[in-house]
Amino acid sequence: MTFALDPRLAEDTVPVYSWELCLVRLMNERAYPWLVLIPRRAAAHEIHDLNAADRAQLMVEVNRASQALAEIYRPDKINVAALGNVVPQLHVHVIARTRSDPAWPDPVWGKQPRTPYDEGELIGQREVLRAVLGLAQEFEGA
Amino acid sequence: MTFALDPRLAEDTVPVYSWELCLVRLMNERAYPWLVLIPRRAAAHEIHDLNAADRAQLMVEVNRASQALAEIYRPDKINVAALGNVVPQLHVHVIARTRSDPAWPDPVWGKQPRTPYDEGELIGQREVLRAVLGLAQEFEGA
Repeated sequence: MTFALDPRLAEDTVPVYSWELCLVRLMNERAYPWLVLIPRRAAAHEIHDLNAADRAQLMVEVNRASQALAEIYRPDKINVAALGNVVPQLHVHVIARTRSDPAWPDPVWGKQPRTPYDEGELIGQREVLRAVLGLAQEFEGA
Repeated sequence: MTFALDPRLAEDTVPVYSWELCLVRLMNERAYPWLVLIPRRAAAHEIHDLNAADRAQLMVEVNRASQALAEIYRPDKINVAALGNVVPQLHVHVIARTRSDPAWPDPVWGKQPRTPYDEGELIGQREVLRAVLGLAQEFEGA
């Protein structure tokens, strides 16, 4: 069985990077800087479906995404979550939250109608993230 | 600065285990089997506030908790989340979710008034978890 990105995740997000383990995608939701990391492993639904090496790599990549969002947006809190009640394919949300965002202090899921980026904003946001996530990966390797 | 458990986390949960990195506590909420893992590190708010060794250990312990809940309760999904918008001290929720639970498919936070366990139930639940989490830790070490 080969890995294929869940169609709902594909529809809600745009590609930013493909890391050693995860696809890194940007949620098309301008209310919060919001990355989704999807391990490229077929039939993984839970963290414990991954083997130990993949789990360790997942932590490395979640940490890299979290730190990058913190550097760029200086949020009040990063939210990290693997929920999957709606889309069972294992995916980890990494979201920069601020006290002034529309869902604060609640979680962001199911809070409000989606507010997608304008096309130009989406491309700009993706390019900023691509640059910083690329640098983050490089410095880590150094 | 020494680690001290946040008073709100202390109030909402009961102790189950103290692992290498984390305090493992049971949320006093009978609607869902719900563990909270709190790294014993002073002033850690974000996953990226931990050093690399602690982050790796956090993944080991989250995985252990997740797998144990899956074994005991056979849930439809495990939810894993480090949010912290209300209680900033770093803590990771590991929750067994089922399609028939009161919040499904939404996240559990802020969904409903809390439904605490009866005292006997709470003790029973804690003892089951203590036994299985202890075994999980042992087998992992083997």
